[in-house]
Amino acid sequence: MGPGPSDVAPSVLSAMAQPLVGHLDPSFINMMEEIKGMLRKVFLTENEMTFPISGTGSAGMEFCFANLVEPGDEVVIGINGVFGTRMAEVAKRCGAIVTKVETDWGRIIEPQAVAETLSSVKNPKLVAIVHAETSTGALTPVEEISKLVHDAGALLLIDTVTSLGGCPVRIDEWNVDAVYSGTQKCLSCPPGLSPVSLSARAMEKIKSRKDSVQSWYLDVNLLANYWGDGARVYHHTAPISMNYALHESLRLILEEGLENRWDRHKSNHLRLRAGLDELGLVLTAQEGHRLWQLNAVGVPEGADEAGIRTTLLNEHGIEIGPGLGPLQGKVWRVGLMGHSSSPENVDRFLSALKSLL
Amino acid sequence: MGPGPSDVAPSVLSAMAQPLVGHLDPSFINMMEEIKGMLRKVFLTENEMTFPISGTGSAGMEFCFANLVEPGDEVVIGINGVFGTRMAEVAKRCGAIVTKVETDWGRIIEPQAVAETLSSVKNPKLVAIVHAETSTGALTPVEEISKLVHDAGALLLIDTVTSLGGCPVRIDEWNVDAVYSGTQKCLSCPPGLSPVSLSARAMEKIKSRKDSVQSWYLDVNLLANYWGDGARVYHHTAPISMNYALHESLRLILEEGLENRWDRHKSNHLRLRAGLDELGLVLTAQEGHRLWQLNAVGVPEGADEAGIRTTLLNEHGIEIGPGLGPLQGKVWRVGLMGHSSSPENVDRFLSALKSLL
Repeated sequence: MGPGPSDVAPSVLSAMAQPLVGHLDPSFINMMEEIKGMLRKVFLTENEMTFPISGTGSAGMEFCFANLVEPGDEVVIGINGVFGTRMAEVAKRCGAIVTKVETDWGRIIEPQAVAETLSSVKNPKLVAIVHAETSTGALTPVEEISKLVHDAGALLLIDTVTSLGGCPVRIDEWNVDAVYSGTQKCLSCPPGLSPVSLSARAMEKIKSRKDSVQSWYLDVNLLANYWGDGARVYHHTAPISMNYALHESLRLILEEGLENRWDRHKSNHLRLRAGLDELGLVLTAQEGHRLWQLNAVGVPEGADEAGIRTTLLNEHGIEIGPGLGPLQGKVWRVGLMGHSSSPENVDRFLSALKSLL
Repeated sequence: MGPGPSDVAPSVLSAMAQPLVGHLDPSFINMMEEIKGMLRKVFLTENEMTFPISGTGSAGMEFCFANLVEPGDEVVIGINGVFGTRMAEVAKRCGAIVTKVETDWGRIIEPQAVAETLSSVKNPKLVAIVHAETSTGALTPVEEISKLVHDAGALLLIDTVTSLGGCPVRIDEWNVDAVYSGTQKCLSCPPGLSPVSLSARAMEKIKSRKDSVQSWYLDVNLLANYWGDGARVYHHTAPISMNYALHESLRLILEEGLENRWDRHKSNHLRLRAGLDELGLVLTAQEGHRLWQLNAVGVPEGADEAGIRTTLLNEHGIEIGPGLGPLQGKVWRVGLMGHSSSPENVDRFLSALKSLL
């Protein structure tokens, strides 16, 4: 019940433990096609370029910036927590000139603030927003921002590491050009892969690059030769077992139904909030924009933040996460993600926490 | 029996399928320490900076170049197959001025050729050599090259993706400054992690960099805060299950004993060679420098290279690999790696091949 990795279903663990085949074995290539198809359904996109990067969510972040940014490109980045801060650092290392839209941790990035910043940037090429800030529990709506970004002639990149599979993520409807996620949150698959998707517009920008992508490992032009529809050209050895696990976790998501899964995350979040209310505890994220899957709970005055976390782990078998950055020592981060989002987990956590306060 | 992934022991699959814990869970941190300790034993090094990168072998390659190369650095790269070619491309993308030491595929990189090239390069900072070329089956001895490299004031980087765990790799004795490997070859762990090790000299070069490492995901300064000995600072979410698998595969290697394991690889290679001799088939790699774990077998005239591979897979359940680059259509690549290196596998392959020729 921390900020990820979440627990995974037994069938995902079993799938992962199946004997290995080669990364160009016909049965594995068939599985790759199924993974791409299921990822499109979960991202709600028809983007051809939709597949898992062979690294964790941060590798997916770097994949997006390394491919989309050319040295000297002006990039606007929303910063309301750890992952916006990280995006700015990654973009800078790819040669971007970064303009930040900053707000207090726990608040969302407001469309108005993006509009103001865009009007002050000469030639914005890319705007990047963290959809679900895992460090604060805030969910920034991206639909209105998307219109502003495209009106300004830029592309929109969003981080859905924590949102995908736990609340609505509609890549095509929201007109998102680039998106990355992680397997270890609401997809409930072990960490190690980062599902990504790029729009045709994003691919055009990449095709028109003057220089090579600075990362060979993350160069989408090379990856497309392995993950694409044509003849499979060896690029790197795909993490076979991790893809077995992702395949099964995506199958479980589609079996449950995306909307049913979102509803489950919502109802368990409401159950948690009701219990926290009774204990007089308050969520950090902005009212009306609170994530269902990640709850940053303010530590009440006088409570031993780290001590209570340790006791929850050692005596109750419940992992929750600490605060990061300015929220260090001030919040507990309680995940209700994927397989871990259940009324039983909520009740068990509330009962244990109550006994320790 | 292809060029990797190799088969893995059942206990590695079971370890991988254990329930997840958090990436900062005390039990996982303890496991990280054990992995680092066992990797040092397998690399035969005391390098503090020894840990697995959260990506495949190619990510380990990029990790080494991204950290060690500053834009404008002169880098010498030995090219005798696919992976030397790849190193040159990766180094170039990191801003290196690359000078190649090229030889025919199947031959080793000769110390004399390295010496000549070094004398023509003004200020060589790094020399990179593929220890075991998976595309050809050639094993380049690096000890003599190491002396030349250090006499020239450069650092030595070697690729041990296919050698580690299957034949001698002695990082400290050979005075190697940077090394990367992969889990899916002779370590017999599923693909997805890349063990790396950096000498104190390599770390000094990195500490003296003027600019940030271009990759945030692979920046050793940031990774050291998570994998190092001090307080663990979150960087990325480590692939927990893959590390469970690596831990068990390293345990199995040390239980067998490194030298016993090398001997096993050698004896199965000799058994294969004897059988190939009887069939009149010849290995591609230079006599006296043939890998025990990867055998590139010349396709005899008139034989259907791809057809025989497909029949081996579909009717005999044996995967072998095709040739790459200039060896495409000309060789079969037969792996005898880690758990897959057994007399039974050799005999089964020889008998099936004989029936198809």
